[in-house]
Amino acid sequence: MKFGGKIGIVGAGALGAFYGARLYRAGNDVHFLVRTGFELIREHGYEIRSCDGDFTIKPPVYSAPEDLGKCDLILVGLKAFANHFLPEVLGPLATPNTVVVTLQNGLGNEETIAEALVKCGVHRSVAEASKQIIGGTAFLCSNRVAPNVIIHSAHGFVRLAEFQGSPKERTFAVAQLFLDAGISCDVRESLAAIRWEKLVWNIPFNGLGVAAHQADTAVILADPELRTTAVEIMKEVIAAAKVNGVDLDERLVADLIGKTEIMGHYKSSMQIDFEAGRPLEVEAILGEPVRRAQQKGFSAPRMHMLYALVRRMDQLRQSNLENSQSRSS
Amino acid sequence: MKFGGKIGIVGAGALGAFYGARLYRAGNDVHFLVRTGFELIREHGYEIRSCDGDFTIKPPVYSAPEDLGKCDLILVGLKAFANHFLPEVLGPLATPNTVVVTLQNGLGNEETIAEALVKCGVHRSVAEASKQIIGGTAFLCSNRVAPNVIIHSAHGFVRLAEFQGSPKERTFAVAQLFLDAGISCDVRESLAAIRWEKLVWNIPFNGLGVAAHQADTAVILADPELRTTAVEIMKEVIAAAKVNGVDLDERLVADLIGKTEIMGHYKSSMQIDFEAGRPLEVEAILGEPVRRAQQKGFSAPRMHMLYALVRRMDQLRQSNLENSQSRSS
Repeated sequence: MKFGGKIGIVGAGALGAFYGARLYRAGNDVHFLVRTGFELIREHGYEIRSCDGDFTIKPPVYSAPEDLGKCDLILVGLKAFANHFLPEVLGPLATPNTVVVTLQNGLGNEETIAEALVKCGVHRSVAEASKQIIGGTAFLCSNRVAPNVIIHSAHGFVRLAEFQGSPKERTFAVAQLFLDAGISCDVRESLAAIRWEKLVWNIPFNGLGVAAHQADTAVILADPELRTTAVEIMKEVIAAAKVNGVDLDERLVADLIGKTEIMGHYKSSMQIDFEAGRPLEVEAILGEPVRRAQQKGFSAPRMHMLYALVRRMDQLRQSNLENSQSRSS
Repeated sequence: MKFGGKIGIVGAGALGAFYGARLYRAGNDVHFLVRTGFELIREHGYEIRSCDGDFTIKPPVYSAPEDLGKCDLILVGLKAFANHFLPEVLGPLATPNTVVVTLQNGLGNEETIAEALVKCGVHRSVAEASKQIIGGTAFLCSNRVAPNVIIHSAHGFVRLAEFQGSPKERTFAVAQLFLDAGISCDVRESLAAIRWEKLVWNIPFNGLGVAAHQADTAVILADPELRTTAVEIMKEVIAAAKVNGVDLDERLVADLIGKTEIMGHYKSSMQIDFEAGRPLEVEAILGEPVRRAQQKGFSAPRMHMLYALVRRMDQLRQSNLENSQSRSS
């Protein structure tokens, strides 16, 4: 099976625009839904400054999902805190046969997408909607520096799994789309396994990146107490995965610490969001994993405390924002 | 036995100056060693604006410990981060018979004072010096708003115990000094017990007060995740006390939460220090308790993580300070 349909990109930020641009450049029928900088992108297209080679594309872009219309495949790259937009966005884009691929961070996004597909009337039940969803993790270092300019500094590897059940022909077809676009991609049996595995890195380095104040990976690893904390959090995430039926190898901790050592002063996406004054993916990356651990009877003390602290900082940023808005109005 | 000797106040801040002033007003021979605002205090004395009644005193003050000279009793109210001054300060003030009372926060101050008394040549061994030390906890809400102005807003209760062995006649004599000055005071058998009991409140509310950003007691208790975190930290401190031989009643948690509920928007001393740009008592209140828990095989996950985060914020403040100093020089 080779995929040849219409592809819609929802959440065309550092992640969505990068993968969308690569798929477009490879000759696919890719359409971008754009919230920020619509006029600019329509006129000048996307500029991808990439470690794999710079390129520019001028794909079809839309500011309203109704204009983009029905798709065969939707790629969701929204930040998880923007998931409340999903029902209004997916309604005009999805049919009962549309496959939705989410490369978002953390846990709970597939469930939210399934609910959105019911809410907007595309599917009659969450169970039915869930069958149309593929989840994935993206190992990508990219940053949007202007509405139409993406800097891709490293990696790009994508790992996919069906939300419900085992990989199907279509899962491999989607993976082939990425491969044909020059993106490494593999398919795995268990979505939970790939999500939890990514959280082993994401929870400590995103969480501490915010809670420990402008603490990039090098800062965390150079501070003996923060380094120990990061390692202990990683072990906790592996334990939380285990009570959720996912067996990860304990050696993953040393492996990831080693890989992080050579990343230098790398900022996690949550740290970048925080420093830019944006909302944080606090529920997807921290809250939901903590709840799933605690529902299975594991207290996850460090993960919970990290969640409480980052949640507080996210709310504080929001209330500071509201205060400054009410002062200036 | 009634205490009638010369009393030296070391660390005449919100705590030391308050108790020193009360002891002075009660007719004791009290002398103040003053670092900040010496001229001001010598000229105008101390102004104590107290919930128990305002008063002013003009006691003898000194800027050099050599001028103050030998004392029978030394009351140490220094912030723990200033303990490195102790050898130079205690040398001129102490004799082998001098009793040193520390009302400082956290763990490890008695050990540091004993080492300082050896370092400055007053005692020949730490064991000998340790016998001259009384530890205590002060339940006091006070704040220094100018070098010579102390606001005393609530409480003041003092609890004393010998650093080594059981209470002696002198322990009760020192307690009587406080009682005669109108300060509630009792004597306990175990210093470790009173120190750990105070830490059950101090660790969560000082630590989170800084780590959770301007989070006073009301903010912590109103946020469901921070409140749970505070409660879980309190349980951890009780567990850390237990492995250190101190049995505290688990009901202390609910009792302290209840008492904190009615305190309103109360700022812990560490939060106040942080907001004022001062160093934090991070080792005495967090580092040393964590080390003592871990030495006994208890990992104290939340306490350790809180220590790592507050330590980071203390160092960050320090390096920001150095940066701004080097910029302005």
